[in-house]
Amino acid sequence: MSELLELGKKILNNQAFSALLGTELEVFESGTVVLSLTIRPELKQQHGFVHGGVLSYLADNALTYAGGSVLGDSVTSEYKINYLRPAIGDMLLARATVVSSGRNQAVCQCKVIAVGEVGERTVAVAQGTINKVDSKS
Amino acid sequence: MSELLELGKKILNNQAFSALLGTELEVFESGTVVLSLTIRPELKQQHGFVHGGVLSYLADNALTYAGGSVLGDSVTSEYKINYLRPAIGDMLLARATVVSSGRNQAVCQCKVIAVGEVGERTVAVAQGTINKVDSKS
Amino acid sequence: MSELLELGKKILNNQAFSALLGTELEVFESGTVVLSLTIRPELKQQHGFVHGGVLSYLADNALTYAGGSVLGDSVTSEYKINYLRPAIGDMLLARATVVSSGRNQAVCQCKVIAVGEVGERTVAVAQGTINKVDSKS
Amino acid sequence: MSELLELGKKILNNQAFSALLGTELEVFESGTVVLSLTIRPELKQQHGFVHGGVLSYLADNALTYAGGSVLGDSVTSEYKINYLRPAIGDMLLARATVVSSGRNQAVCQCKVIAVGEVGERTVAVAQGTINKVDSKS
Repeated sequence: MSELLELGKKILNNQAFSALLGTELEVFESGTVVLSLTIRPELKQQHGFVHGGVLSYLADNALTYAGGSVLGDSVTSEYKINYLRPAIGDMLLARATVVSSGRNQAVCQCKVIAVGEVGERTVAVAQGTINKVDSKS
Repeated sequence: MSELLELGKKILNNQAFSALLGTELEVFESGTVVLSLTIRPELKQQHGFVHGGVLSYLADNALTYAGGSVLGDSVTSEYKINYLRPAIGDMLLARATVVSSGRNQAVCQCKVIAVGEVGERTVAVAQGTINKVDSKS
Repeated sequence: MSELLELGKKILNNQAFSALLGTELEVFESGTVVLSLTIRPELKQQHGFVHGGVLSYLADNALTYAGGSVLGDSVTSEYKINYLRPAIGDMLLARATVVSSGRNQAVCQCKVIAVGEVGERTVAVAQGTINKVDSKS
Repeated sequence: MSELLELGKKILNNQAFSALLGTELEVFESGTVVLSLTIRPELKQQHGFVHGGVLSYLADNALTYAGGSVLGDSVTSEYKINYLRPAIGDMLLARATVVSSGRNQAVCQCKVIAVGEVGERTVAVAQGTINKVDSKS
């Protein structure tokens, strides 16, 4: 396991909310990140689909990690997400990449994919701005 | 308690993810909604602030409820959120309102407010599109 | 006329694209700005409404001015816009305000309003991030 | 020239605002569109870069065309754009693709590229929702 991936997993473990949900860091390289999350009944809404807030959380976190992979300690300043279809299946993957980055800021994009019996389906796409900590205000 | 508020609370109870987080519906009127969420350690990230994904979840849910208050059964199609400052305190409030609505679609805005010893502080603002169920694709 | 408004008008005059469209700066105070634009046939699309790109331009510019009113020389880093209804009438107004600001960054919101025989109608709402020049990358 | 491209060019000619700016339709296929725009002094802002509003207009229009390529007569309901760097050079290209589409709605992404002596540089990325005309409200 790379040093960066090890560091990333340690940070994720320190996010109580990510631990509550069960998020795992699968890939953490310069400019690319993949988070995974097993779909459990606790993550659903009233129609039996994964709650949109879970997809948003996962996209947000993946965007931050992608930005952080090139900027260091970072926060998501803003993002937008489009939900494409109901999220069902066994697992969610959020793959985020850096589109452009400078010294203090990166613009990243993310796909959230539901993996199940029917294969992989993109259920949401997101785009946002990540800022290096202490560089924002 | 109004019939609409009672219905809204029932729907929220059927969202397993909202139950996991502890979200409460405070206000649910035509065009306006307020959700509340007690800040617990499980909702935080590694710096001790509420995880951005929690703010996103809450904004997303408030936007859906606001749209639903004029459209009926609805889903959030998309939204964007700007995080304004770290969220600390005792409780989060998400106040969402309908900016414009038609037969099948509403555009809504939301403020997420952290309530604590220092008073109320807006920690995030969001804007998004809510679609009546079955009218989207 | 205030010094700030005078400065703002001078900057607008130096924007060749704003001159091409005919944009005027009506209000430019700390945290608030209003731009106006007379609707001419050249600004329309194939259905006879003002082209969405004109609404976007005006919102973008108003957001930048709002941010600039508290930050000084600034650029829009990102924004999102929701179109609410077709824009028809005699004139467009874009009113933007600062929601939150720090040393180098401001989050602003904007309403674009069409003014015509039927009165004022909000035709678009936007939300975005404005960065002080040289603070971004 | 394909029938679809011919139709697309005809629609663009009927957009008075696109004619004012000088936009050309280069590619118009199912799910993919490229618009081009020659950079002229009239399209710039006070620092000598292409005005952000021009980039927004071009992204918006490319998103609409991309959505329209699979939906038929369409409008952009909403989008967000991140500006990545100052736009300089000889020409702008906006390449938009359909990420997901249903009967009445498509989610599309767009890159705006500045072409000049230094080659091609992505200056903005956008993501938005396109709705079939008459299916929105």
